Amino acid sequence: MSKDATHINKSINPAFYKTRKRQKTINTQELATAIAQGDITALSQGITLIESTVQSHQDKGQQLIEACLSKANKSVRIGITGVPGVGKSTFIETFGNYLTSQGHKVAVLAVDPTSSVSHGSILGDKTRMYTLAQNPKAYIRPSASGKSLGGVARKTREAIILCEAAGYNVIIIETVGVGQSETIVHSMVDFFLLLKLAGAGDELQGIKRGIIEMADAIVINKADGGNTKAAKLAKTAFAKALHLFPPKPSNWTPKVTTCSALENTGIEEVWKLISDYTATTKTSTYFETKRAEQNKFWLLQTIENKLKDAFYVNEKVVSKLDAVLSKVAQGEVSPFIAAQQLLKLANE
Amino acid sequence: MSKDATHINKSINPAFYKTRKRQKTINTQELATAIAQGDITALSQGITLIESTVQSHQDKGQQLIEACLSKANKSVRIGITGVPGVGKSTFIETFGNYLTSQGHKVAVLAVDPTSSVSHGSILGDKTRMYTLAQNPKAYIRPSASGKSLGGVARKTREAIILCEAAGYNVIIIETVGVGQSETIVHSMVDFFLLLKLAGAGDELQGIKRGIIEMADAIVINKADGGNTKAAKLAKTAFAKALHLFPPKPSNWTPKVTTCSALENTGIEEVWKLISDYTATTKTSTYFETKRAEQNKFWLLQTIENKLKDAFYVNEKVVSKLDAVLSKVAQGEVSPFIAAQQLLKLANE
Repeated sequence: MSKDATHINKSINPAFYKTRKRQKTINTQELATAIAQGDITALSQGITLIESTVQSHQDKGQQLIEACLSKANKSVRIGITGVPGVGKSTFIETFGNYLTSQGHKVAVLAVDPTSSVSHGSILGDKTRMYTLAQNPKAYIRPSASGKSLGGVARKTREAIILCEAAGYNVIIIETVGVGQSETIVHSMVDFFLLLKLAGAGDELQGIKRGIIEMADAIVINKADGGNTKAAKLAKTAFAKALHLFPPKPSNWTPKVTTCSALENTGIEEVWKLISDYTATTKTSTYFETKRAEQNKFWLLQTIENKLKDAFYVNEKVVSKLDAVLSKVAQGEVSPFIAAQQLLKLANE
Repeated sequence: MSKDATHINKSINPAFYKTRKRQKTINTQELATAIAQGDITALSQGITLIESTVQSHQDKGQQLIEACLSKANKSVRIGITGVPGVGKSTFIETFGNYLTSQGHKVAVLAVDPTSSVSHGSILGDKTRMYTLAQNPKAYIRPSASGKSLGGVARKTREAIILCEAAGYNVIIIETVGVGQSETIVHSMVDFFLLLKLAGAGDELQGIKRGIIEMADAIVINKADGGNTKAAKLAKTAFAKALHLFPPKPSNWTPKVTTCSALENTGIEEVWKLISDYTATTKTSTYFETKRAEQNKFWLLQTIENKLKDAFYVNEKVVSKLDAVLSKVAQGEVSPFIAAQQLLKLANE
């Protein structure tokens, strides 16, 4: 966050900082109150608790989420993906600044499972979105790091709750699209936006399988200068391709539009499109239903992940797993029999 | 199976039947030997063991699979899906009879999670594939029944091993495409075929999301009479749409072809296509790699399913789950905290 923003927000509740310096331990209720007042430093501290690997921090993080839940949910959550080079940073910066100019408060989070390796390959460098980082109505947080996509995703999903409690009403989740990260981001957002460039011909090449089907909108970026014509052609090609897919459960027909984040054209149209989507799906109650389903999905997903985690750290399982996998791969033992053997081992 | 087929196969090892009648218990080694000799009655009995809900049968079934594993794997496994009315039965019958005329032995299995409800909505009625059921080189087995898709899928996957051990070198797995059944069939076959009809315009309408991306070939059936022109147009539309997708890990470009199962035209081309696929992917070793990956997938999948099953039958979990799901859906409690609470309950 920018120094300006900190300054502005610190002024909201100066007592909080005094209290915190006196007490060495963190009072989650006070932190929740500060977050609800829009205090960016408190928000960052809260997210740090969530992201911590220290158990006592995690426990406080969970208390904080519980305290913030009643204030969450009043936002539109937008997932944005696109291959490197498509101009995601520039788009998010231009889009974010447009939104704040319209009175919105914008939080930008990221799901990047490679961040622990690359020390933040996206959003790590705030100079990437310099003007948005300076914008007092915007909050940018780099991707949590973690060994597993599941872990990174959980932290991001919990950070959404804190950002919403802090009054951010547009939450943007960026993903680089490594592994299953798009699918996981899709399961935590209301609207999924695929950013594309106009190419030479095969417009859908280079996109991972399944992404097109997840998109609620395809936005063709860099529709400027000599690219304008190609972008228009790409728009037509995508619109035709999307038309071939079966209808979505939302009954929303995915839209294709062009923009130039650099020249700040077409940005308003993207927001109009998302507003149309939320209006339509709120009328049909699909919006709320989808969020409820996503919450349930995360409950069941968390249970499954924790069950698996417990199994795969079992020492007896660890000592045998590779050999068993190899035998199964070679067809020397049936997968079902091997599974039974490993499960028996784990329960011994 | 037809009476003729039984008769022919009984003659292979008449001693087996005498032995079996004397002994009340089943000797799995003898059963495996009979299966390896192509004995259809032994094969059916083996599959019945696998499908049984009686623990002692299941144990014998697992022994049988172990005994058959070394003889399995020498086949091409073809998944076939398509909406009701597309002519799956007629296609499989014509295709199967063509294959046996070329010297192949064809087994037809099914994954139909609704079979326990409808008492076999597909393949239950052998009159559906009357001539194939009479064909001594073909073996048709209705879908296993079961409460869960996972259970039905496991049984089918184990039946594949027995069929291969019995010398069937083309295994066809039919699915009606209920729920996730296509995905599960896709994970047990080498080649995935989507059967379609020529429609009025939006050719991909009515297909579940993701199916197109799984298909190695789209075959437009009923390309006969007044439909011929529409089928050709559909072929062009699909070919264009498929071209828009990114390349598959197999490096195989999905093909589109037309046929008339009723008039027996275009059937040879379908087989040629599949043969091209197996030749190409065997040269690149993708064929073997994919099977090894599928085996590992099934090992991990089975472990996960069994871990989940154990959790969700836990009485304490059962007594709380609905209330917790409802709270989570409403956003009253965070999915992660709820998951921890349920896991704690299960371990108490």
